[in-house]
Amino acid sequence: MSRLSFWGWGREGAGPDDAARERLAKSLGERFGRPDLRAAPLPRLEEITLRAPRIAPPSALAAIASSDPWERARHTYGRSYRDAVRAQRRDFAHPPDWVAFPRGEAEVAAVLEHCTRERIAVIPFGGGSSVVGGVEANVVGDYRGVVTLDLSRMARVLELDRSSRAARIEAGVLGPALEDQLRPHGLTLRHFPQSFEFSSLGGWIATRSGGHFATRYTHIDDFVEALRVLTPTGVIATRRLPGSGAGPSPDRAFIGSEGALGVITEAWMRLQDRPTRRANASVRFPGYDAGVSAVRALSQSGIEQATVRRLDPGEAATSAGGSGREAILVLGFESADHDLDAWMRRAAELCRDHGGAVPDDALRTRDDAAASREGSAGTWRNSFIGAPYVRDALVSIGVLAETFETAITWDRFERLHGRLIAEVGEALRRVYGAGSITCRFTHVYPDGPAPYYSLLAPARRGSELEQWDEVKRVASDVLAEEGATITHHHAVGRDHRPWYDRQRPEGFARALRAAKAELDPAWVLNPGVLFDRAAARSEP
Amino acid sequence: MSRLSFWGWGREGAGPDDAARERLAKSLGERFGRPDLRAAPLPRLEEITLRAPRIAPPSALAAIASSDPWERARHTYGRSYRDAVRAQRRDFAHPPDWVAFPRGEAEVAAVLEHCTRERIAVIPFGGGSSVVGGVEANVVGDYRGVVTLDLSRMARVLELDRSSRAARIEAGVLGPALEDQLRPHGLTLRHFPQSFEFSSLGGWIATRSGGHFATRYTHIDDFVEALRVLTPTGVIATRRLPGSGAGPSPDRAFIGSEGALGVITEAWMRLQDRPTRRANASVRFPGYDAGVSAVRALSQSGIEQATVRRLDPGEAATSAGGSGREAILVLGFESADHDLDAWMRRAAELCRDHGGAVPDDALRTRDDAAASREGSAGTWRNSFIGAPYVRDALVSIGVLAETFETAITWDRFERLHGRLIAEVGEALRRVYGAGSITCRFTHVYPDGPAPYYSLLAPARRGSELEQWDEVKRVASDVLAEEGATITHHHAVGRDHRPWYDRQRPEGFARALRAAKAELDPAWVLNPGVLFDRAAARSEP
Repeated sequence: MSRLSFWGWGREGAGPDDAARERLAKSLGERFGRPDLRAAPLPRLEEITLRAPRIAPPSALAAIASSDPWERARHTYGRSYRDAVRAQRRDFAHPPDWVAFPRGEAEVAAVLEHCTRERIAVIPFGGGSSVVGGVEANVVGDYRGVVTLDLSRMARVLELDRSSRAARIEAGVLGPALEDQLRPHGLTLRHFPQSFEFSSLGGWIATRSGGHFATRYTHIDDFVEALRVLTPTGVIATRRLPGSGAGPSPDRAFIGSEGALGVITEAWMRLQDRPTRRANASVRFPGYDAGVSAVRALSQSGIEQATVRRLDPGEAATSAGGSGREAILVLGFESADHDLDAWMRRAAELCRDHGGAVPDDALRTRDDAAASREGSAGTWRNSFIGAPYVRDALVSIGVLAETFETAITWDRFERLHGRLIAEVGEALRRVYGAGSITCRFTHVYPDGPAPYYSLLAPARRGSELEQWDEVKRVASDVLAEEGATITHHHAVGRDHRPWYDRQRPEGFARALRAAKAELDPAWVLNPGVLFDRAAARSEP
Repeated sequence: MSRLSFWGWGREGAGPDDAARERLAKSLGERFGRPDLRAAPLPRLEEITLRAPRIAPPSALAAIASSDPWERARHTYGRSYRDAVRAQRRDFAHPPDWVAFPRGEAEVAAVLEHCTRERIAVIPFGGGSSVVGGVEANVVGDYRGVVTLDLSRMARVLELDRSSRAARIEAGVLGPALEDQLRPHGLTLRHFPQSFEFSSLGGWIATRSGGHFATRYTHIDDFVEALRVLTPTGVIATRRLPGSGAGPSPDRAFIGSEGALGVITEAWMRLQDRPTRRANASVRFPGYDAGVSAVRALSQSGIEQATVRRLDPGEAATSAGGSGREAILVLGFESADHDLDAWMRRAAELCRDHGGAVPDDALRTRDDAAASREGSAGTWRNSFIGAPYVRDALVSIGVLAETFETAITWDRFERLHGRLIAEVGEALRRVYGAGSITCRFTHVYPDGPAPYYSLLAPARRGSELEQWDEVKRVASDVLAEEGATITHHHAVGRDHRPWYDRQRPEGFARALRAAKAELDPAWVLNPGVLFDRAAARSEP
């Protein structure tokens, strides 16, 4: 296996090669009427100039510290479109001064202690897949330097309780290594965000990650049984409890805290038996906005689907073999316990009631592994996991490839969606001269969907960030005005701050800052995500 | 309808009458070998001496203020065993000085403002059914007086969103009035705690109330879509969102805050269609500890039961027609959408695999209303709703009737349960000379059960509180030592404080107090629940 890319998604060389990028440039050049689109060379480490570290690790931490240029470059950004553009420009202006790789909680504590004493900002870092500036080493404030705290060496399943189906797991483990350790026990966390291969358990918890599954267990939140969090003022360890009514949940206070209230070092996680039976179907709905009412009916039926992913005709055509004239609903059930015929039969009935065409062979539960990989569901899953590599390739040919996502109640969805398609579409044409916006539902709840929008447009070399900022602002302002959330599962980080500040009640912001000042009095933990030290709100 | 009892459960005269109480005394006297047990006269208002109010309501609040003795007496306590004992003794030593009945948020704000300015403690009060001292008007600290803030006049459904199945509801509404307002729309909150008739929406949210249903939606937490909370420093209103990943959940910070961080004035609540189909069964398991493994298998099957209530042989005999030699599992499914045959069939299979005897007629879905009221399920439900009246009658004849509940992971349940049965049983015999402890599961999770223990013992007149304190301490210490929660759904209040203080991580306590100081700087809101102003921990 090649080493991790210092600038882009995943492993070096794993994305589309030069020839594939040229083909992509040609095809999109034709589509957008921009024959000038060309695949630019990808960044190489020797092209990158990093400023000299402003601070050096103390000798007591030398064994776990690195100032190696590859490490500093690799920890400069997350993996957003903005990050890929800056990497493509060879702009690594604000790398961390050094990177710490603690092997256990005592070493995490030593780093926090050193940084608190020396007034050094600390950026907790799991897989580094943030798409919202959550791990960016460029911090504002009176800090002598920045240390990135990379938890990748804390990656073990420490304890496993088979009867309760739970495990105590170090926070730095990435998705595949976690599942590898659970598989021999027949268990799975069954949490598969798109970043699965290169994101960590601690990162999922700190950002309220959304998994692959559409209903029931959408966010990591519900899988957390207990947490262990290290703060500059001590350890916070919660009890393993299946449920509790003792005061506000301490776990929930740290789920979504984005490294600003403490460093999650371990968690007891609820696991599941590995599913052995599946029933899948691709249901077709004629028309652009078709299928929404079916999804609502499904979400309120009490029959919880593992997958209920509505792709609009644009998304269906590119990723699930659609004709471009019909929406596709990818529907799936999974179980380790029972056949799913009754579940799928009722779901199919509901789809037909709402105008969907359900293939007859969908109604049978299958217990072969192929069931999870075939058909539109399989096509879609492959394009899902590979998408971030393609995004980087698109950036290299000068094309905007971005997404944003939200959640809103059913009664307001149509209006929100209409405004987004119209106003973001208009902004794309105005700013980029061309472009497309498509929508899928990634998660659905009885009270509303989580729509996910994908954008594609030909950018102007050198103006990519300004162009995107302009369109992102249009989208985010619509979300704020319509009362939707600025993020359903991409977190706040630094990029979403202006709109999060409008969304979050001011009194809650004050309470959070007071809690932060108590736990992290020197204010060294991930400054700038979620809130600022000063009470003043940032404005978009 | 008679007015509410000023001292006991529910409405005046609704509990067992004098003759019934005498029969109860005779029967329990024989059972416990205590022929001296007699039904004492129930408290009458004219027997109660209340101290003169220390403070008077300001004229601006006169229209919503009451210093009426019945109101002051009625708001002196919650409805715990300790409260009933003190009422039975005519001990109302610490009534609130006056009671406020705001008709809307502006009046709540006016009360908070007045009390903040005048250093008066404020006890938010919904239905007043706390069993943990959560609304007790006896507060410690430098306060000029105590005002109870009774939200019962804020009881309307203000807005209803049929498509998202959600409603905006004033926090003071009691269970039946809430369901009455939802019924014409075919909707229900479907949250039925034992206190349902005399507890409020705001109280459910503030205490993380547990409903009747055993899986999936156990706590009120998951039904909260958005909150409106009034604090002495302003309103906190969260957005209506089906799901969100934007920072730590602001709703979760106030769910379980027990009136100490703010007054919940309104909530958008997630509703459900009213179930029309049901499948019920009573499954019998021979032996005292039988049926536990079946419950674990059910909880991990992915087939979510509305009811899966395991009664041990003692509980089964008294409330579900059991023989005393077998445990009974009350199993039920409900749906507004689909027949439940496949669900019940699989659940029955699992029960049989674990040694359960399932009646054949259980396997059919029924859509007649009787299905919800018949058989052991029905017997059990009636005794469930009536139980608090019986508890008061037992107190009047000098019998301890108390419960405590917890939750713990499956791997530790057997040890915890064994210790509780042995050590609490021993404490009952030591302190009371006789007594029984029985167990049911009220809620189950894939990672563990929520066992609920009921105690019955003949008390010594005049020493009831000391006797109960001694046994409660034994039980609570075992919960703490075994890492269980001090409460699964009865909240912390003032009574659970010593053990909650051990359970809650110290750093989280500091963060909570910092948040409290920010939102309620004069520290007037429900002082003494959850935490004290001083950082020192209380000790059991």
